[in-house]
Amino acid sequence: MKKYFLSACYFLLTGFLFSQNNDSITCRKIANEILNNGKCYSWLDYLSNKVGGRLAGSPQAAAAVEYTYQIMKTVADTTYLQPCMVPHWVRGDKEVAKIISSKTGEQKVPIFALGGSIATPDAGISAEVVEVHNFDELKKLGKAGVQGKIVFYNRPFDETEINTFGAYGKAVDQRWAGPSEAAKYGAVGTVVRSMTNAIDDNPHTGGMGYKDSIPKVPCCAISTKGANLLSTWLKNDPKLKFYFKMNCQTLPDEKSYNVVGEIKGTEHPEEIIVIGGHLDSWDVGHGAQDDGAGCVQSIEILRAFKALGIKPKRTIRAVMFMNEENGGRGGSKYAELAKLNKEKHIAAMESDAGGFTPRGLSIDATSDKKEKILKWKNIFMPYGVYDFSANGGGADIDALKDQGSVLIGLYPDSQRYFDYHHTATDTFDKVNKRELELGAAAMTMMVYLISEYGL
Amino acid sequence: MKKYFLSACYFLLTGFLFSQNNDSITCRKIANEILNNGKCYSWLDYLSNKVGGRLAGSPQAAAAVEYTYQIMKTVADTTYLQPCMVPHWVRGDKEVAKIISSKTGEQKVPIFALGGSIATPDAGISAEVVEVHNFDELKKLGKAGVQGKIVFYNRPFDETEINTFGAYGKAVDQRWAGPSEAAKYGAVGTVVRSMTNAIDDNPHTGGMGYKDSIPKVPCCAISTKGANLLSTWLKNDPKLKFYFKMNCQTLPDEKSYNVVGEIKGTEHPEEIIVIGGHLDSWDVGHGAQDDGAGCVQSIEILRAFKALGIKPKRTIRAVMFMNEENGGRGGSKYAELAKLNKEKHIAAMESDAGGFTPRGLSIDATSDKKEKILKWKNIFMPYGVYDFSANGGGADIDALKDQGSVLIGLYPDSQRYFDYHHTATDTFDKVNKRELELGAAAMTMMVYLISEYGL
Repeated sequence: MKKYFLSACYFLLTGFLFSQNNDSITCRKIANEILNNGKCYSWLDYLSNKVGGRLAGSPQAAAAVEYTYQIMKTVADTTYLQPCMVPHWVRGDKEVAKIISSKTGEQKVPIFALGGSIATPDAGISAEVVEVHNFDELKKLGKAGVQGKIVFYNRPFDETEINTFGAYGKAVDQRWAGPSEAAKYGAVGTVVRSMTNAIDDNPHTGGMGYKDSIPKVPCCAISTKGANLLSTWLKNDPKLKFYFKMNCQTLPDEKSYNVVGEIKGTEHPEEIIVIGGHLDSWDVGHGAQDDGAGCVQSIEILRAFKALGIKPKRTIRAVMFMNEENGGRGGSKYAELAKLNKEKHIAAMESDAGGFTPRGLSIDATSDKKEKILKWKNIFMPYGVYDFSANGGGADIDALKDQGSVLIGLYPDSQRYFDYHHTATDTFDKVNKRELELGAAAMTMMVYLISEYGL
Repeated sequence: MKKYFLSACYFLLTGFLFSQNNDSITCRKIANEILNNGKCYSWLDYLSNKVGGRLAGSPQAAAAVEYTYQIMKTVADTTYLQPCMVPHWVRGDKEVAKIISSKTGEQKVPIFALGGSIATPDAGISAEVVEVHNFDELKKLGKAGVQGKIVFYNRPFDETEINTFGAYGKAVDQRWAGPSEAAKYGAVGTVVRSMTNAIDDNPHTGGMGYKDSIPKVPCCAISTKGANLLSTWLKNDPKLKFYFKMNCQTLPDEKSYNVVGEIKGTEHPEEIIVIGGHLDSWDVGHGAQDDGAGCVQSIEILRAFKALGIKPKRTIRAVMFMNEENGGRGGSKYAELAKLNKEKHIAAMESDAGGFTPRGLSIDATSDKKEKILKWKNIFMPYGVYDFSANGGGADIDALKDQGSVLIGLYPDSQRYFDYHHTATDTFDKVNKRELELGAAAMTMMVYLISEYGL
């Protein structure tokens, strides 16, 4: 009996090793195809340099839909659009800001309106400034300390967070919730230190959310050098004034689209693996790293399957999600339609952390499914993709979890991401061709393995 | 007995875990200190932007010696210079090159003389071109196919090498040995495709070695776009001519120095851990990634020990090696003096692969010593430093192996290194502060562990 058992074990083991070996060979072919013949870098060149920044509702967003629809058609069996209504916020004229001190003089500083902010009055706002580092400090100041003033949130990134997304997570409440928190106590506006490790002159815009019951106040992000200057001047002259002028506005919702392309599975076409990035970006840069990279990587996956003649057993669908940055309407619409059409998503993967060298994949799955995925870990090691410890998917796919889908996120090196995130320097030249391609390769390998074996 | 054995095991295990835990805490302090208060980035700013490219024997190399001597004095117990004679090659006027075709016309192309090359005659050289991809092809062509011509080496980087140093290793024979190999068959000059994955207009210089018994011919590197153009034009017009003009020359050897700073060990001062980078760089850029990064990281290690008040049990010595790029005289001199003075180097670590995010440390050691080092692996994991599989040290420290030293190399992400290596774009803006600091932190942690426990 023991002998048979051992034989069976041997058979199972060699079978496992044999398939792992075959999978390794296929994954090597995938990596080679993308590194030798990848198109994602040139697609990103177009998306960044010809289309440019593409905030939801803008003509550039419409151009990005058209462009990715056309390239999707060259690699997918089926390509289609999913209409959805999106918010349409416009920045207007270039913002102006300065610090005015009777002691130190006047100094212009670089700001960007936060996405969704209301405008200042035409003449701008000028008021005294109160600097805080968190909402507790704000609360302690109360109405007496805040009323009629501009609240300046100046808590910096925690440099000791090795993954910069950790630092972002610990600081971003100031940007997102700061305006309404300050308005509670009668603030007339807010200025937030830019969400970045870098000390430079680039302000970083980003989303914020007004609370319904609280008056809306104009809010902007100031560059880190500007924030340091304002803080220093404030110590010297607590009565100085900050002036800013913005004429951004929210227009009526616009019609836009998710762009979808798919390759039908040969054995289990009803089981869907969705991969994607978000097609919209902030308007101030070109959205190259955030998230043109994730979009073109997702289309590259389909291209690699086609180029290698791999017919996936399960359906692979690439989606360019619209409006992640200031509404998430594309992701919501996708999940809504998936539910309505009773689609079975077995896995959803998003790349929205930049096209930097991949270091791992984050996974949000039940323990049995996670275990299955982790058995493939060794296949990824030769490509420097070693870390599967994080838990998480991506903003556009998270809603699919409730529909039973495993969520996966590409986890690239994070050190440079917040140098460019939501700022004017998020341009094509910040993307390295090989880093982008290696990310696409890691994603394709995982999609291939899931399409072969299911979850 | 079993009980006692288990108790002993438990004791040993908890002792081990306790020390690992303490070491993890110290290493966290090291990382935090460098990420919060690191000076290496601002030192590199000076070395790149104020000193600039610093080829051995140049005034800039002398300025770099002076600058690093001064900063070393602020962090080391003892600072001194090690004199050595270095080659002194100068590039001269900006090189000129063009392709001249009776069919397609004339086109200027970007080249750099290879370091050590002789000049062309004053009027330049103009000759027909023969394109080859390896020395076998050259041999097959023989004298009949090569005599009087310019040999154009055009084997590109293998894009499928995940670590770009692998691609470099497979291509660099064309640059290093190409001139003499071609001259064997009567070539009048050589042009080599730049050693890079990038397709752009930047030629990459680098070292070459003439063989003694073979006539010297002028040799240059052409940008990858230039190489692609030359190859395309050649297919159309095999009789086209390549013209190039260079007036580089080798002057008499100059006196230069390694810069050395050390912190004496408290318990085993005679056991030395040496860390370093090379202070010289090519002249065409600012030597920021190659290897200003490795130099400032090495000094940062001493700074971190001082700032944290850690008194190392073994002696830690940082060395700015001179002349790695075109002679290696500094490294040789260091090893020669170490032997002469009967110094005991237990470990030598070099950072000469760029200041990118660290991914691991390469180790060249006997299996028992390697095993000891690998026991510390988990301490590095939270910092994304996971790969200890490579074998190797660095050009300036390899000679210490014969003296019994373990060799260690910082192994950073390699994707962008050859975009900048030996070219005019190797400037300070290509270095990310956090990536540089994380590399320094990983090195400091390893130095700390070796200084505590020996090898």
